[in-house]
Amino acid sequence: MIELTPEQRDSLECAGISAIANALLGLGFRNVWMRHIAPVRWHGGRNMVGPAFTLRFIPAREDIDTLENYARADNVHRCAMEKCPPGSVLVISANGEIEAASAGDLMIARLKARGVAGIVTDGGFRDTPDIAAISFPAYQRAPATPASPLRLHPVELDVPVGCGGVPVYPGDIIVGDAAGVVVIPAAHVAAVAETVAETTAYEEFAMDQIERGRSIFEVFPATAQSRIEYAAWQAARSTS
Amino acid sequence: MIELTPEQRDSLECAGISAIANALLGLGFRNVWMRHIAPVRWHGGRNMVGPAFTLRFIPAREDIDTLENYARADNVHRCAMEKCPPGSVLVISANGEIEAASAGDLMIARLKARGVAGIVTDGGFRDTPDIAAISFPAYQRAPATPASPLRLHPVELDVPVGCGGVPVYPGDIIVGDAAGVVVIPAAHVAAVAETVAETTAYEEFAMDQIERGRSIFEVFPATAQSRIEYAAWQAARSTS
Amino acid sequence: MIELTPEQRDSLECAGISAIANALLGLGFRNVWMRHIAPVRWHGGRNMVGPAFTLRFIPAREDIDTLENYARADNVHRCAMEKCPPGSVLVISANGEIEAASAGDLMIARLKARGVAGIVTDGGFRDTPDIAAISFPAYQRAPATPASPLRLHPVELDVPVGCGGVPVYPGDIIVGDAAGVVVIPAAHVAAVAETVAETTAYEEFAMDQIERGRSIFEVFPATAQSRIEYAAWQAARSTS
Amino acid sequence: MIELTPEQRDSLECAGISAIANALLGLGFRNVWMRHIAPVRWHGGRNMVGPAFTLRFIPAREDIDTLENYARADNVHRCAMEKCPPGSVLVISANGEIEAASAGDLMIARLKARGVAGIVTDGGFRDTPDIAAISFPAYQRAPATPASPLRLHPVELDVPVGCGGVPVYPGDIIVGDAAGVVVIPAAHVAAVAETVAETTAYEEFAMDQIERGRSIFEVFPATAQSRIEYAAWQAARSTS
Amino acid sequence: MIELTPEQRDSLECAGISAIANALLGLGFRNVWMRHIAPVRWHGGRNMVGPAFTLRFIPAREDIDTLENYARADNVHRCAMEKCPPGSVLVISANGEIEAASAGDLMIARLKARGVAGIVTDGGFRDTPDIAAISFPAYQRAPATPASPLRLHPVELDVPVGCGGVPVYPGDIIVGDAAGVVVIPAAHVAAVAETVAETTAYEEFAMDQIERGRSIFEVFPATAQSRIEYAAWQAARSTS
Amino acid sequence: MIELTPEQRDSLECAGISAIANALLGLGFRNVWMRHIAPVRWHGGRNMVGPAFTLRFIPAREDIDTLENYARADNVHRCAMEKCPPGSVLVISANGEIEAASAGDLMIARLKARGVAGIVTDGGFRDTPDIAAISFPAYQRAPATPASPLRLHPVELDVPVGCGGVPVYPGDIIVGDAAGVVVIPAAHVAAVAETVAETTAYEEFAMDQIERGRSIFEVFPATAQSRIEYAAWQAARSTS
Repeated sequence: MIELTPEQRDSLECAGISAIANALLGLGFRNVWMRHIAPVRWHGGRNMVGPAFTLRFIPAREDIDTLENYARADNVHRCAMEKCPPGSVLVISANGEIEAASAGDLMIARLKARGVAGIVTDGGFRDTPDIAAISFPAYQRAPATPASPLRLHPVELDVPVGCGGVPVYPGDIIVGDAAGVVVIPAAHVAAVAETVAETTAYEEFAMDQIERGRSIFEVFPATAQSRIEYAAWQAARSTS
Repeated sequence: MIELTPEQRDSLECAGISAIANALLGLGFRNVWMRHIAPVRWHGGRNMVGPAFTLRFIPAREDIDTLENYARADNVHRCAMEKCPPGSVLVISANGEIEAASAGDLMIARLKARGVAGIVTDGGFRDTPDIAAISFPAYQRAPATPASPLRLHPVELDVPVGCGGVPVYPGDIIVGDAAGVVVIPAAHVAAVAETVAETTAYEEFAMDQIERGRSIFEVFPATAQSRIEYAAWQAARSTS
Repeated sequence: MIELTPEQRDSLECAGISAIANALLGLGFRNVWMRHIAPVRWHGGRNMVGPAFTLRFIPAREDIDTLENYARADNVHRCAMEKCPPGSVLVISANGEIEAASAGDLMIARLKARGVAGIVTDGGFRDTPDIAAISFPAYQRAPATPASPLRLHPVELDVPVGCGGVPVYPGDIIVGDAAGVVVIPAAHVAAVAETVAETTAYEEFAMDQIERGRSIFEVFPATAQSRIEYAAWQAARSTS
Repeated sequence: MIELTPEQRDSLECAGISAIANALLGLGFRNVWMRHIAPVRWHGGRNMVGPAFTLRFIPAREDIDTLENYARADNVHRCAMEKCPPGSVLVISANGEIEAASAGDLMIARLKARGVAGIVTDGGFRDTPDIAAISFPAYQRAPATPASPLRLHPVELDVPVGCGGVPVYPGDIIVGDAAGVVVIPAAHVAAVAETVAETTAYEEFAMDQIERGRSIFEVFPATAQSRIEYAAWQAARSTS
Repeated sequence: MIELTPEQRDSLECAGISAIANALLGLGFRNVWMRHIAPVRWHGGRNMVGPAFTLRFIPAREDIDTLENYARADNVHRCAMEKCPPGSVLVISANGEIEAASAGDLMIARLKARGVAGIVTDGGFRDTPDIAAISFPAYQRAPATPASPLRLHPVELDVPVGCGGVPVYPGDIIVGDAAGVVVIPAAHVAAVAETVAETTAYEEFAMDQIERGRSIFEVFPATAQSRIEYAAWQAARSTS
Repeated sequence: MIELTPEQRDSLECAGISAIANALLGLGFRNVWMRHIAPVRWHGGRNMVGPAFTLRFIPAREDIDTLENYARADNVHRCAMEKCPPGSVLVISANGEIEAASAGDLMIARLKARGVAGIVTDGGFRDTPDIAAISFPAYQRAPATPASPLRLHPVELDVPVGCGGVPVYPGDIIVGDAAGVVVIPAAHVAAVAETVAETTAYEEFAMDQIERGRSIFEVFPATAQSRIEYAAWQAARSTS
């Protein structure tokens, strides 16, 4: 499992997911952004960041996905809430199903109590008004009110899955901001965190310059000249 | 027409629609939640609750759905706004059409003035910024700016319809919270209200326990042991 | 290019887009409202109003839409940000593509700095949290995080395009409110602005009457009688 | 109920539905073609032509749409098969539902035995291989294998409905060719049949001319000159 | 693994999938039919019948799904073609992806050579014209021309998957006719085969009666009286 | 404009579009296959092959897209039929619109008479039964019965467009087989034609071997050993 340095964590918690997607594109990864996934409510502050722990759903079957089986101690859905490691992000592959809930407010409160970093599903949650009231990063495609066993069968934990059209391998670093979620392949987290820290700083400079009236062509993408100015701008800031 | 007791009304006005859907599932009803329907704006407070009064739309026809006919005294669309009984919910079957408005701000203001409890369409409304400013429960699929007669013809009132994929019979109890809308078949309202009052109280206990660090397996779904603890927790609360 | 009079501008900046769509329907235009387009964030106040300046995208090709070409001085996408005239609205035809960004926060900040009136795409933007923080009208279908050249190739500026299912000709007047966007063919702006000023005033009267308990049939659509009352109501207001 | 003359019937049985849609457009009807509807199998020969007899479905409910109720003598779905008049077309409004069958091979065989002219649904049929083997016009959106009561509740017969996005009033003339289905408002059948007979004859001439190498501009749409040539061509044909 | 008796195999090879879905509904299984799945070409004759052997895809990743890895001996996609047991049906879970092929003509020819009973994907195949020319049951959602590794990563074999919205467990019996595919849970194959043999025989009688002019109410669903007649009809047939 | 050699033409007319897409993938082009596009009817024989000549549609506007303007000599839609060069393929960008026809049988007959190689739209055609009867390659997304000016406005000819999600530049080589359409960037036609000729020959060998019982691993993708065998197989064939 990847252990993030404080600098890497800072970089990923403060960057926009677009900057992260750009850094991954520079490494050859074109498909890292989950389509149609947004937070139930954005509570402000830093991004959700943590390694992926996955849960795989398939469609339910009437003789297997009974309420009795749901209540069993080996129910994989409920086990996910107890086994997802603190600090990690529970990523649920629900194939876009919103006619049954990927989780509800009690499960999400349990994840929060256990120190989990967040939850992502490409289906949806029930009790979304209650989830919105919990200060916990929860991303979904759309609300999904009906009971989970009506449509979803939990098969296994911590295997490679697809979520929102993106491959997610256990241990990949999941980042969510106010807009959505990107996936960083574990082996590339260090490179991404470093690149993103740089581009975020440069874009702060570029935004400052644009607000002063400079053109897109002068500052974005960076030019040889703008990099020189950026270095001066940074030097001036650090001495002020 | 069902007359709700104050206790039943309290139960349905304070429960989440997920809890209501669960209670209906216990009675064998699997399809009670309207897909892709949300409030124009949630104004906080209690749920929308009332018996359904329905309006059925079909696609418009150029020689019938003229502005002249729209202005007639027997126009079924406008009649709906005057005939929907106080306390009831106007449920509009628009087959998902968002290229013409199911209603606008004047109609909705009229429903409010007449004491109607709310409005639901599986199409959309025009004037949504103005509707958002009215404190009145109004649920839709998406905004629908163009004039109603451009695409929608009102056929009849108070007949069984589909709305958001759910069957709605006149008199069914419609409940809307911050997340969406469920339909309770009229004959089952008493049973649902009772079950929901119980599960809502139990889930309050369960949430309290989870915030104290207990596991999902200990409290959800309820176990024989957790029910004993719940009884004690309730007793303690009522004496304090 | 149409030059709006102050009265026309007032009319269009204060009307709802539904009223504008209605006025256009009266002139025979049925398809003026962009489907599934909403502001990234509505900042309150008056509508976005300005003549359309267009950018046409097609799908990207790997040998043309390189990052090197993106950085060139003749890149049509970046040129759009520098050439869109102050006061106009940049309308982007992206064919609904949300797997690459139609623009990002730096581009939008540049449009704002140059005095452009707003931006509309039927695709989406990257950096939407940052765009939401800029007080600038920006309308999209959904967030679109990945880099533009991954999927979008900018072909040309200021040609007729489709956006959100509506034809947009350069110079058409684009109006956006809290709910969405409508397009007014340039030759009809004066007529629309005048009609809309009248209907907006009448609907203020109608809303007042409905809040006092009058029926839909008495005031909407206007009747011969209600027009008389409206004249009196207006006269009373102007003398008070 | 409209009684077609032999000439009208000939005209409508031999025209393409595009020509009929064009004739209706000339009368101001823009929305007459059912979207995404095609024959299960096209058996060649003349078009399906007949007045609409309608069946309206809404979503099913577990306590109403039981197999017991399905077997009752007053089941509206099965009544439709016995009551649809010989010569008419059974038009089923299923709201696009394909997770339950609008009809099966036995029902369709019964319609054929009773002399009904055809069946159209905007949902789908079960037993489509068997239906394909029956020489009977049957139009659908897509195959729909599961049992009807699983998702569909039959409400009423012979009321105005929407089907494939088009309004259908009882008695409207339904025409289906190898490509799809159009709806002719009953009051306009005579005018449409006459126009279509003319345009079909002219297009035969135009096709002949185009095959001889003439340009689109010379023959389509018809010009003053081409009409003269057409008259001569027709005269020549009738004397040969 | 279920071993079908010759009678069971006969029953399932000759029944329509609607009859099988009905039999499963009688056992409480409502979700057994794959949505939007059809044969590339139907070659006539008996149904595809065999136990499911599954392949699970997730979205591809650029550093894993290289052409080099595709050519390795442990590539799970190619292994599926060699390991799927003779007589079984290869069921591929592709999450509806049609921008990369679930298989091509060489793979399908290999399955045929190895005696596999058929292949089903909820994505699509490349080389569909060539596949159509092979007499082998191949079911898909739509053609999918691009190379598999462009979008699809093969994760594992013979695990529970979803396909076309239906749960498929290894060993479930897959049946495909000219219209589509249904899934029979392994433990219920004997009951289904028996029921289906009976209903198929009865429906042959019912179709015969309907062609003779009897009503739906007399023969479908079966009544006490029609069952008596059916018994007589069968007795007459067996003696003739 | 690219002039194909007879060998290149042979190669492209006989290859499957999957093989062409593979060759383009080898050159770095991932997006060359039009989604959801199929021939109205496949008449057998060789592929459609020719350079693209494009027509760009946007949504129609009531005051511009009148039947009068449609009949004018400068109507861009009709001009396309007269100006598309013999041997080329008319590629129409209709943004998926199927509620108005991209072309009809007369236009397509004119293209055939003029020696055009084929027509492709990402919308649809009217008169599809008649088009099916003409032996001319015509590809679409779905039938589109209503008159063109109802929804489509022709803007310009021979500009870069998107069609079926793929960029098409004038002069790109368009290839259509029984399954669909791919686009070859003009500069890469020679390389693609050569590669495809080789892979098609090798795959003939591979198919022969698989039919003799060899495994996928032995022959696909090609291995060092299989290439030696292939050389021998070819040598044997050429001497027999």
